[in-house]
Amino acid sequence: MSRKTSKISVIPLGGTGEIGKNLLVFEFEDSIVVIDGGVKFPDDELLGIDLVIPDITYLEKNRERIKGLFITHGHEDHIGGLPFILPKLNIPVYGTKLTLGLVRAKLQERTPYPDSLMHVIEPGEQIKAGAFEVEAFRVTHSIPDAVGYSLLTSIGRVVYTGDFKVDYTPIDGQNMDLGKLAAWGEEGILALLCDSTNAERPGVTMSERAVGKTLQEWYERAEGKIIMASFASNVHRIQQAINAAFDIGRKVCVVGRSMESVVRTAIELGYLKLPQEDMIIDSSEVGNIPSEQLLVLTTGSQGEPLAALTRMATGSHRQINVRAGDMVIIAATPIPGNEKLVGKTINHLYEIGAEVVTKETGQVHVSGHANQEEIKLVIRLARPRFLIPHHGEIRHQAALRKIGHSLGYADQDIALTQLGSRVELSADRMEFGERVEAGSVYIDGLGVGDVGQIVLRDRQQLAQDGVVVVVVALAAKGKHYRLLSGPDIISRGFTFMKEAGTLVDEAKKVVANTLESQLQKDQLEWGVLKSMMRDSLSNYFWEKTRRRPMILPVVLHY
Amino acid sequence: MSRKTSKISVIPLGGTGEIGKNLLVFEFEDSIVVIDGGVKFPDDELLGIDLVIPDITYLEKNRERIKGLFITHGHEDHIGGLPFILPKLNIPVYGTKLTLGLVRAKLQERTPYPDSLMHVIEPGEQIKAGAFEVEAFRVTHSIPDAVGYSLLTSIGRVVYTGDFKVDYTPIDGQNMDLGKLAAWGEEGILALLCDSTNAERPGVTMSERAVGKTLQEWYERAEGKIIMASFASNVHRIQQAINAAFDIGRKVCVVGRSMESVVRTAIELGYLKLPQEDMIIDSSEVGNIPSEQLLVLTTGSQGEPLAALTRMATGSHRQINVRAGDMVIIAATPIPGNEKLVGKTINHLYEIGAEVVTKETGQVHVSGHANQEEIKLVIRLARPRFLIPHHGEIRHQAALRKIGHSLGYADQDIALTQLGSRVELSADRMEFGERVEAGSVYIDGLGVGDVGQIVLRDRQQLAQDGVVVVVVALAAKGKHYRLLSGPDIISRGFTFMKEAGTLVDEAKKVVANTLESQLQKDQLEWGVLKSMMRDSLSNYFWEKTRRRPMILPVVLHY
Repeated sequence: MSRKTSKISVIPLGGTGEIGKNLLVFEFEDSIVVIDGGVKFPDDELLGIDLVIPDITYLEKNRERIKGLFITHGHEDHIGGLPFILPKLNIPVYGTKLTLGLVRAKLQERTPYPDSLMHVIEPGEQIKAGAFEVEAFRVTHSIPDAVGYSLLTSIGRVVYTGDFKVDYTPIDGQNMDLGKLAAWGEEGILALLCDSTNAERPGVTMSERAVGKTLQEWYERAEGKIIMASFASNVHRIQQAINAAFDIGRKVCVVGRSMESVVRTAIELGYLKLPQEDMIIDSSEVGNIPSEQLLVLTTGSQGEPLAALTRMATGSHRQINVRAGDMVIIAATPIPGNEKLVGKTINHLYEIGAEVVTKETGQVHVSGHANQEEIKLVIRLARPRFLIPHHGEIRHQAALRKIGHSLGYADQDIALTQLGSRVELSADRMEFGERVEAGSVYIDGLGVGDVGQIVLRDRQQLAQDGVVVVVVALAAKGKHYRLLSGPDIISRGFTFMKEAGTLVDEAKKVVANTLESQLQKDQLEWGVLKSMMRDSLSNYFWEKTRRRPMILPVVLHY
Repeated sequence: MSRKTSKISVIPLGGTGEIGKNLLVFEFEDSIVVIDGGVKFPDDELLGIDLVIPDITYLEKNRERIKGLFITHGHEDHIGGLPFILPKLNIPVYGTKLTLGLVRAKLQERTPYPDSLMHVIEPGEQIKAGAFEVEAFRVTHSIPDAVGYSLLTSIGRVVYTGDFKVDYTPIDGQNMDLGKLAAWGEEGILALLCDSTNAERPGVTMSERAVGKTLQEWYERAEGKIIMASFASNVHRIQQAINAAFDIGRKVCVVGRSMESVVRTAIELGYLKLPQEDMIIDSSEVGNIPSEQLLVLTTGSQGEPLAALTRMATGSHRQINVRAGDMVIIAATPIPGNEKLVGKTINHLYEIGAEVVTKETGQVHVSGHANQEEIKLVIRLARPRFLIPHHGEIRHQAALRKIGHSLGYADQDIALTQLGSRVELSADRMEFGERVEAGSVYIDGLGVGDVGQIVLRDRQQLAQDGVVVVVVALAAKGKHYRLLSGPDIISRGFTFMKEAGTLVDEAKKVVANTLESQLQKDQLEWGVLKSMMRDSLSNYFWEKTRRRPMILPVVLHY
């Protein structure tokens, strides 16, 4: 392949047209570089599905060309898919210290991965990955050690911001490397992939430091124990909460599996600093400490039914009870779709008599993503030739395109991608190439990819109106069959059968009539017989109840 | 019963601890007065349920004491239950003209109700209802002709605000009757039941008129057709939209069943005024009118899968297509739980290339409920002895209690009710009496109340992991049974069975082994056999897949 005709391909296998399961593929000449491998939480209609990961068929087919997988930061939507993805690819993994620490903890839960393939990198380090030279640059986000990436090739540089906000006063003092972005911009950036999550929101996002101040104020007002729920990975917020607790002489108890795991990793790696050695107490000791000397840091800010805060609110947590007079701070916004669950938790807490502080009533949360003015700053500094809105639903990507327009970019300078789009970049052109295989793989229990559209459609029908099994046994009698037993009817999730005697009796008659007419025929086809039974029963139930349970005919014949 | 010892009872059978299915019962001496009879839309976990209505067992048992049902306004959560409730009670119904018009339209869809029992009332009219004298007073809300009620008895007056906001500039010029409230306050109000919906929100709600101005501005900017979705019942907003369309020479097409029905009723009764006779065109004529001369008013502001806007956005509406360059205005906020559905519609619209205007990007919606400062105004004017937060979840009722505290009410002056609570009021006391039967009745298709917790739990299990039917036939052989046919396995919604050959084969073996050990026993109990089959299969599937499909064993024996 001659260098002259080479193009850089940008292929999103996740994170475009959606928020979640981020995975970006970059191709140049014979080399492939991958960024991130996240999960997405299932929509309501994906009944029974636990997680959604990107379809990586394309990567599996091109495995030998992959030079490495680089990770931007340790959030689930960027690393949660790795336990499923990495074992299939067996490729080197690169990330900053905390990020890799979180990835290691995650991999250990499911699939061990060779340590020799895990490489801790520093922002500014230049890593040769085939035809790419990859360099991480520091960004500020709602988790420490987050980076974006520059991918330099012989025909130009592509930059991906990763998830970011422009926080001028980050808790850890690690500023976003705006200077690097400006320097690259000066040299010339071919294309910028930019976080679109908050592109609909005007102005700027507040600094995480603002939350610290508000937390202090709330903590000072609290009389009973303080229970604070937030995303486990928001180490900065946890740091601020611990500092504020220390200032007023409260001990800290960390509750909830993911919170405990992140806090352990962050302390081990030096990202979380305790103002005092014995500040953290075990949940078994909670009973020995007066309420007014206690801060509980916990999971459940999304109202997840099994999370610690939810269990505390419903009185089903083993160690921690919420009591009247306790203060519960929910330091997070509900992810779209979780509003009702969070509302339920809040109502339970009020029922107990707790004081509940939320983003609405107490400014205890700020977003980790850049609003419009921050996005403009980054684009102005980077001055890319082309713009690729990433990390967002179509509405967010369209909003980022609008920002692009306001900065002078024309429609053809901005690429709105879909899953599997191939954006081809040459020094002065951006166009769409041939799409690659892409989509969603559903994880349900131990099954990866064994639940697809047919199974989901069945679950939806079962969820709506339940199931009815109708059983008959037939015995051969000359060249015909006669009814040996049945029809019998079993149902679940349809109607309360004990009180539906008439309905069941008539339904049996309907099936019996169908059988009678069919069994007289000379050529009895079992498939036809079953579908006749199904249709007659389905029509009967629809007429009587306006419901369409799934009907499963069972015909035994001897 | 002597007058001296008489108490007024306030019994919420709906609308407390929840937003929806409002129904208030007032009792004094031998008389009962009911206010409203609404529906609630089912939560996600109520699989397959269409609607939820209040349990009115208590009213059915005391039917002969009910003097009348008074309606505050024509929203679904206040009138939607009437087609199910009224036929069981056969009582007089009172409401303002538009409200009763909407109730009539609703009753006609399902159950005709004798016209002789329907009474149109005017605010200010005093209606004798047994031991109560009932009087409606005008409030402002997001539907015309809304009222609150005063219930006067020999021991004092109870006032219910109904749903309200304090709009000083209502579109129809019908102001909230603050003077009446003040006059009653001067005389002395025993208890005030107050709308709590927005009690968490500081400040005041903007006037509906503000939306009119913004709509005008957006309409002027539009180039293609304008499609505006809002709640069908918001006649004021529809009026403003029609006026704005008239000003810029656009015709109006009304699309969507509930929108068409409300517009028809509102025009007939004089609540909606057309600036020009032939302004409204039929949807069949849309093709004949240039896009830039068209406004489509439609349903689907909540992203409901079958509503008109949703169908337009997915290209499945028969008459109206959204095209690139069209402007779609979603003039509503998502009801909690609907955020994701609305988001989907928005994304579809962006995909087509439409301009999408929402509350966030365009201030095209204001709430119909009072914020904190409006609630304070009403309490200050009414100066009730006791306060009963109504129409809200616990969080909202607790927020209203907090407002009460700020105005000097003590805890014992404020009653936080639950469904079926009986609040007993005497001239100087408020206390809780014995609770009455109350709760939810689920409507699924034609069935009212035949789906309960057992059926719902089954649906939840079916939704999660599907169903497996395992069939065996046994033949008697001496005093034992032998396997005649099977085990056969049928499943739906569990896993893709065509690719699960090994799983199915092994599952059959598991059942066969269970049978083998059971069939050797001298005393074969069919119930035990079935539950052994179920358990062995369930354990096997859990071990292999971490799923728990519902298992239905079918055993035929001869």
